[in-house]
Amino acid sequence: MPTWEIVPGHIATPLGFRAAAVRAGIKKAAGALDLALICSDAPETAAAGVFTSNLVAAAPVLVSRRNLAKSRGRLRAVVVNAGNANACTGRAGVRVAEQTTRVAARLLGIKPEQVAVASTGVIGVPLPAALIFRQLPRLAAGLSREDAAAVAEAIMTTDTFAKSCVMRTLAGRRAVHLAGVAKGAGMIHPRMATMLAFLATDVAVDPRWLRQMLQHAVDASFNCVTVDGDTSTNDSVLLLASGCSGVRLHRAGSRWFLRGLTELCQTLARMIARDGEGARKLVTVEVRGAKTVRDADRVARAIANSPLVKTAIAGSDPNWGRILCAAGYSGAMFDPARVEIRVNDLCLCRRGVDAGFDEEEAKRRLDQREVTIQVALRQGAAAARMWTCDLTPDYITINASYRT
Amino acid sequence: MPTWEIVPGHIATPLGFRAAAVRAGIKKAAGALDLALICSDAPETAAAGVFTSNLVAAAPVLVSRRNLAKSRGRLRAVVVNAGNANACTGRAGVRVAEQTTRVAARLLGIKPEQVAVASTGVIGVPLPAALIFRQLPRLAAGLSREDAAAVAEAIMTTDTFAKSCVMRTLAGRRAVHLAGVAKGAGMIHPRMATMLAFLATDVAVDPRWLRQMLQHAVDASFNCVTVDGDTSTNDSVLLLASGCSGVRLHRAGSRWFLRGLTELCQTLARMIARDGEGARKLVTVEVRGAKTVRDADRVARAIANSPLVKTAIAGSDPNWGRILCAAGYSGAMFDPARVEIRVNDLCLCRRGVDAGFDEEEAKRRLDQREVTIQVALRQGAAAARMWTCDLTPDYITINASYRT
Repeated sequence: MPTWEIVPGHIATPLGFRAAAVRAGIKKAAGALDLALICSDAPETAAAGVFTSNLVAAAPVLVSRRNLAKSRGRLRAVVVNAGNANACTGRAGVRVAEQTTRVAARLLGIKPEQVAVASTGVIGVPLPAALIFRQLPRLAAGLSREDAAAVAEAIMTTDTFAKSCVMRTLAGRRAVHLAGVAKGAGMIHPRMATMLAFLATDVAVDPRWLRQMLQHAVDASFNCVTVDGDTSTNDSVLLLASGCSGVRLHRAGSRWFLRGLTELCQTLARMIARDGEGARKLVTVEVRGAKTVRDADRVARAIANSPLVKTAIAGSDPNWGRILCAAGYSGAMFDPARVEIRVNDLCLCRRGVDAGFDEEEAKRRLDQREVTIQVALRQGAAAARMWTCDLTPDYITINASYRT
Repeated sequence: MPTWEIVPGHIATPLGFRAAAVRAGIKKAAGALDLALICSDAPETAAAGVFTSNLVAAAPVLVSRRNLAKSRGRLRAVVVNAGNANACTGRAGVRVAEQTTRVAARLLGIKPEQVAVASTGVIGVPLPAALIFRQLPRLAAGLSREDAAAVAEAIMTTDTFAKSCVMRTLAGRRAVHLAGVAKGAGMIHPRMATMLAFLATDVAVDPRWLRQMLQHAVDASFNCVTVDGDTSTNDSVLLLASGCSGVRLHRAGSRWFLRGLTELCQTLARMIARDGEGARKLVTVEVRGAKTVRDADRVARAIANSPLVKTAIAGSDPNWGRILCAAGYSGAMFDPARVEIRVNDLCLCRRGVDAGFDEEEAKRRLDQREVTIQVALRQGAAAARMWTCDLTPDYITINASYRT
C-alpha cells in the first residue's frame, strides 16, 4: 500500500491546477488579500462538496450546492472571498453569488454551473459585488502554478496563520498529490463541515465515489473540531480531482487514497483547532470504553464544548471534576464510579474520584502547547475523538466588536 | 384572586421557620460565611425538591433525593455549605453527607431522613467534614427568625451579590409568605434545576401537590437560565411549607399560590442570570411565532448559549447575523426569510435580512444593563423565553484558576 508523505507546495501542486489571489478591498486591513480563484484545467475534473447543516445557509452555499448537482459533480473552479460572508443577505445575495459564477465561467471558458463560490466574514451585510467583479479578470489572468500559495492567506479572517498542507505518494510509478487550504478561527462547530476548506488532487475518479470518500474524511476530521459550539452559515469543504496524474481510482482500490485524504483533512482540522480565536493550546479529547460510538461522541463533544473545561485548561488548572461533570450531562450512559481521566498521560481521576496526583506535575503538563484529555469510561469498546482549544480572554476581545 | 407583593425579609420570614449561618472555614476567604441551616419548627411541614439531571450527581444530591423519598416529602431542615461541592468524592462523600444529616437531626430532635443537604464549590476534593460537624451545634443553637438574612450570603461562591426575595399575599384575612434564597454564577445551565435555591412558605399543603407546583415553577424559571451551558453536579431546589399561616391549599384552589411561587422563582432566576460570572448585562431572549413550543425553546436556548451572540452583546455590537445563525443551527424548523429580530425594541433584521437600522441607536440600546432579544419566526403561535448574561473576559479570569 502506498504511504503518503507531507511535501512542500500549495493548492496548485497537484497536476492540472492553477490558482491566484488578489486584494479586492473587501477586508478593511490595507493590502490584505481577500479574493482567490482555484481552477482545474482538466475537462474531466470530478468534484465533491460537504456543506453546513445550518438551516440558515449562506448564498454561496446555496449556489455551490446547486451547481454541484447541476454539473453532476463536474466543478472546474472555485471563487472564494473573505471579509464578507454573503449570509442573511436574501435574494440579492443569491443573485450576486450567481453572477460571480457567470463572470468567472466566461473568463475561464467553462459553464457557470462548473463554478463554486464560497464566502467568509461578517454576516448580514451586502457583499460588495462590484469589488469582486472588477477583480475577477485580473484574477483569471493571474492564474498560475507558482503563486498559488497566496490562496491560503486570502481566505483568512481572524486566523493568525495560513493553513495549508500538501501530500504526495507513489501509485505504481506515478506520483499522486493531495493538497488543501483551510480557514477557521471562530464560529467553529462540528456537524457537517465546519469552516472553509478547498482540496485538490490529481487522481482520476468518479464524482460519486469522490463524494463518499470526502464525506468519510470530513466526518473523521473537520466534524471533530469545535472552537465555540457555533455552527456557521457558510461552512464548505470542496474537493476537486483533476485526473492529471494518470492514476485512476477504482472503488475497491481506493482505500490508500481515502487514508491520504483523511490525513490531509485531519492535519487541516488540527490547524483550525490550534488557531481557534484567542487560543494558546491545541486540546485533543479522546474518549474510549463507551458502550456505543454515539455515547463516546456525546462525551467527547460535551467536554470539548464546555467553557468551564476550556477556561481551566487556559489557566493550567487540573480541574478534572469539570471534565467528569461535562461527561455527566452529555446524555451518554455510564457509571461515574468507573471513570478514569488522564491529562497528557497523568492520571487525575480514578474510579470517579481524585487519583491523588502531584499538583505541580499536573500544572507542568497542562502548561504544554498540546493538551490531550483521555477519558476511559470502562463500559464498552467504543471510542471517539474531538479537537478543540483553550478558552482565553482574547476570544472575547476578538468577538466583542467583530463587525466594527 | 390574591395578588403577591414583594416585601422586606429573609428566608425565615414565613411563619414557622428559623435559620442561621456561620463560618466553618471551608471557603478560603477570611471571615466568609460558608455553612447555613434552615429549619421548620412545624411537625407537619411538607417538602419538595428538584435536582440536577447530570448523571454525575453529587453526594448531597443523592442523599437529599433519598431522604425526600424516605420521609415521603416531610423534610424539616436543610444544611448547606459553600466552598466545596462534595461531588466526585465517591462513597466517602456520601458517608459525610449522611453523617451530616444524622448530626443535624440529633441536634434538632428530628429524624435523619427529615434533613436535606446541599453543597456548592470545588468538585472532586473531599469535603472537610470535621469543620462542618464542629460548627453544627453552634449553628443549631443560633437558629433564629432575626439573623436569617445571613443565609443568602453563606451559600455564595463566585456570586457578587446575595440573592434573596420575599413575597406576601392575603388569603382571606390571613397573610401567606413565600421566601427564597439562591446562588448561581458559573456552571449554570437549564434542564432540571440549575443551581442552589431554598424556598420557604407558611401555607399548609400535601407534599405531592407541592412537588407538582415546584416542578412547574422551576420549569418556568430556573430551567430558563443559562450562563455557560454547563449543567452542574449539584443543582438543587428545595421548598419547605410549614403550614403555620393556617391557610391550607386545596389542589383546585392553588393557582394563586402557584403564580406566587413562579414569580418568586423567576425573580431569583433573573438574579442568577444577571450575576453570571463576569456578566455586566442581563439578557432576555424571547422567541415567538414558532410552530411548536419545542422549536421555540430550541431557538431560545441556542441563542442564549451562543458564545458569539454573548460576546457581541458584551461589546454592544448589533451583530444580528449571529442571532439568526444560532437559530439556524438550533434544530428548529423555520423559514429564515420570514424572521424578524429586535433588540430592546429596535428592529435589526426584517424578513431575514438587514432592516436598515441606525448603528448608533443600536449601540445605545445594547449599552443598557438589560438587553432583550426578540425573535419572531412567523411560523406559528408557540413562544419561549430564556435568561442569560453577556460573556466578558472576566468569565475566563474567574474560571481559569478556580481551584487554586
